[in-house]
Formats: sequence, C-alpha cells, structure tokens
Amino acid sequence: PHVPLTTYTRYSEKEMIERSAAFYDDMNNRRTVRFYSSEPVPKEVMENIIRTAGTAPSGAHTEPWTYVVVGDKDLKASVRQLIEEEEEINYNKRMGVQWTTDLMPLKTNWVKEYLTTAPYLILVFKQAYGFNPDGTKKNHYYNEVSVAIATGILISAIQKAGLVTLTSTPLNCGPALRTLLGRPNNEKLMILLPVGYPAKDCSVPDLARKPLDEISVWF
Amino acid sequence: PHVPLTTYTRYSEKEMIERSAAFYDDMNNRRTVRFYSSEPVPKEVMENIIRTAGTAPSGAHTEPWTYVVVGDKDLKASVRQLIEEEEEINYNKRMGVQWTTDLMPLKTNWVKEYLTTAPYLILVFKQAYGFNPDGTKKNHYYNEVSVAIATGILISAIQKAGLVTLTSTPLNCGPALRTLLGRPNNEKLMILLPVGYPAKDCSVPDLARKPLDEISVWF
Ligand SMILES: Cc1cc2nc3c(=O)[nH]c(=O)nc-3n(C[C@H](O)[C@H](O)[C@H](O)COP(=O)(O)O)c2cc1C
Ligand SMILES: Cc1cc2nc3c(=O)[nH]c(=O)nc-3n(C[C@H](O)[C@H](O)[C@H](O)COP(=O)(O)O)c2cc1C
Repeated sequence: PHVPLTTYTRYSEKEMIERSAAFYDDMNNRRTVRFYSSEPVPKEVMENIIRTAGTAPSGAHTEPWTYVVVGDKDLKASVRQLIEEEEEINYNKRMGVQWTTDLMPLKTNWVKEYLTTAPYLILVFKQAYGFNPDGTKKNHYYNEVSVAIATGILISAIQKAGLVTLTSTPLNCGPALRTLLGRPNNEKLMILLPVGYPAKDCSVPDLARKPLDEISVWF
Repeated sequence: PHVPLTTYTRYSEKEMIERSAAFYDDMNNRRTVRFYSSEPVPKEVMENIIRTAGTAPSGAHTEPWTYVVVGDKDLKASVRQLIEEEEEINYNKRMGVQWTTDLMPLKTNWVKEYLTTAPYLILVFKQAYGFNPDGTKKNHYYNEVSVAIATGILISAIQKAGLVTLTSTPLNCGPALRTLLGRPNNEKLMILLPVGYPAKDCSVPDLARKPLDEISVWF
C-alpha cells in the first residue's frame, strides 16, 4: 500500500541555496586520513553513523548490507595481521608496476598501522543474496551498487559527525576476514573503513579536486 | 608531496553525538519519490549538489565520473521516450516473474512520467578508463564502486538541499542514452536520478527500514 509522503520539508529557494552550499563546504573538507589518534570515540556516535547508512536506497528495498563494527583491540590486531600479509603480496606481486606507480603520490604500502590505532573499524559486507521466510534464496537486485551508495552515505555521516575515515578495498582478504568475523557465505566484504580522530600532525597527499566544469555537462 | 591536514574541525563528544543524531534524522526523512512537481529548481542548487558529489573519494584519486544534468524540455522528452521503450520490454520480457513480483509493493511499471515532469535529470556516468596526457589509456581502479559511493554523497546532498530524487538503473538503455547525450566510449551510464520537488499529494510505498541490530554486528 502507498501512504502520503509526510517526511518531506520544503525550504525557500534562498534556504536551499544556503543549505546546499553549506553541505558542499562540509563535505569538501573531507580528506582520506591514513594516520589516526587512538583516542576513544563515543559508541553512540558510531551507532548514529551506522543508522544513517541504513537509510540508503536499495534495489527493490532489499537493504542488502551488514556492517561489522570492530572496536575490540585483539580483533583489530587479527584483522591487521591478516590484511598486511595479503597486502605485502599485493604490492610485490599482484598489483604490478603501473598500479604501484599510480599510487606513489599517496605514499601507501602494505603496512596499515591505522588498523590498530583507529578506535573502530567498519567492515562493509554486501549480501549477494538473502533468504525468504521459507528458506529459499531471495534475489538482491543491484546489491553491489546499493551497498556502495550506502557507503557514500556512511562516509557523509562520518564527516558530518566530525570524524575521519579511509575508504579501502582490501584486495584478496575478503574470504579470510569473512571467516574471522563469522559472517555467512552469502556475504562478501566490499569495503573497510577505519574511523576515529586524525593523529596530531596528520598529513595528507597534496591533491586537488576537479572543478565543476570538468565533472559535469549541462543541457 | 604530503601537506598538513588543515580542513579538519574537531568537535566535543557532546557536539558529535548531537551532529550525528541530527544528520541521521535528516537522512532518515529521505524517501525515493516517483511523483514530481514541474516547478523549477534554482540552477545554483543543482551546481552545489554536483560539486558535493565531486568531493567523493575515488580509487587512486582518479575521479572517474561525469554528471550529465538535463534541464532541457526536449532532451528530457527524448530520454523518456528512449527509456520507456526499453522498460516496456524489460517488464514484459527481460525481468521475469520473480523480479516483477518483488517490485509489486513499489507499484512501478514502464511508464516514467517523472522523466519529463521533474525539472532536472542527473545521468551518472562512470569512466571505465581515462586518458593520460600522451593519449594512452589510464587505469581507473575501482571505478564502479567509486562512482556508486559518489552517488551516495550526491543523494545526501539532494536530501540536505531539501529536494527529492529517485535512484534508478535504466536496464539496457545505457548505450542509447550515451549516444543521445554525446558521451564518449569510455563512459558507461550507471544511474539516473530525477531531481525536484515532490508532487502535491505525493505518495510513497509504505516501507519500514531495518533497525540497527539487524544491519550491524558489534565487536
Ligand atoms: C541501485 C538502485 C536501483 C534502483 N532502481 C530503481 C528503479 O529502477 N526504479 C524505481 O522506481 N526505484 C528504484 N530504486 C529505488 C528503490 O526501490 C528504493 O530505494 C527502495 O524501495 C527503498 O525506498 P526508499 O529509498 O524510499 O527508502 C533503486 C534503488 C537503488 C539503490
Ligand atoms: C573504492 C575506493 C578504494 C580505495 N582504496 C584505498 C586503499 O586501499 N588504500 C588507501 O590508502 N586509499 C584508498 N582509497 C582512497 C583514495 O586513495 C582517496 O579517496 C583518493 O586519493 C582521494 O583522496 P581524498 O579522499 O582525500 O579526496 C580508496 C578510495 C575508494 C573510493
């Protein structure tokens, strides 16, 4: 059944211009952070951030996502060990010269200290399929795109809260992390994000963003 | 070269809790809207929204996206005609009984009036690869995931501005729309979003969202 749209708030044109400019400023201040402080972050903030990700649209409203949030020290250490072992092979063998050259401005390598210093890690799993009440498989249409869109909303929420993150796609670590975290076979790791405060004296690659006219075409 | 992170603002724990709760409320008010008013929307708001999408993270900072924004009446009509022709075949032949059954609560079909009533359509193209200054191909790592994440930030910006949208993935229309809009071969249509005000008396499917404990696991 359909119901009236009651959650919509209409603003004046002036307010819309101001609100959209203010949100742009907020989001333009976001940078990917690779150096974290170990200071704790309130769990309530993390809960609000995950709740916000859960408001995302999804193909046929299947909500095909599981967020695994790791604050436990020992488990973070296990995640780090597992990822660093794979990433060393990735950098030295799997990624090839072109890829590692393209990454040089970012100065990244297989040592991922942030996996143990950041107070929280969020591991985003997509559910490639689900289950109907009778146990049969349920189609999750566009699950990969839906979960990535939800991750964009998650990143927005982290930025709005005043925390920082790093969007990462741990290559070849998915199945081992799935096993470590006890996730079922229908779930696949897509993205891992540490969340916390930046380290004192945190630095970032000196990057510029493309201006509006290089990313858009108007008719 | 690396530079100090100067764009970060630190908030107190109390502020972080309030800010994250307020953003959750804003975003939880978002609904996918399928009935639009034809009232015009200021172009400046649209520009701010696209700029905000352009702040998204991307694999190796490749920024692999092109946003085609269509406000022109005739071009919207051409887009609509093209999509409705394909969607009629999708619903009747390509999607199958399971898919169309799963979509029934949404009451969607191949008639897409919103494609001409909404003041703007945003067509999100991913650049499957790019070009180096010397004309050789440039790798766009994780371009699909990066563009979907950017779309999540775009949807957040539309919601924050006080406008509504519909996340759609026009099945089988990509190449024809690419040609219609004059986009190059390396670009692929991923998502189409109408943007505007909801129609008077707009209704939405009566859906609930999963609570926090069904979408997350905490360690
Ligand atoms: C990747 C993706 C594709 C979608 N495709 C369509 C579509 O083609 N047509 C449509 O009416 N809705 C589409 N939707 C919208 C979903 O049906 C909608 O998000 C879902 O029913 C939940 O409703 P809500 O967004 O109001 O929370 C799509 C959503 C996503 C994320
Ligand atoms: C899908 C995706 C995967 C990424 N993977 C990594 C990664 O594995 N390691 C890393 O350090 N950064 C990773 N990044 C972050 C990008 O390098 C970063 O977003 C880009 O350099 C732009 O910097 P900014 O986010 O500060 O604007 C990834 C980003 C995206 C969107």
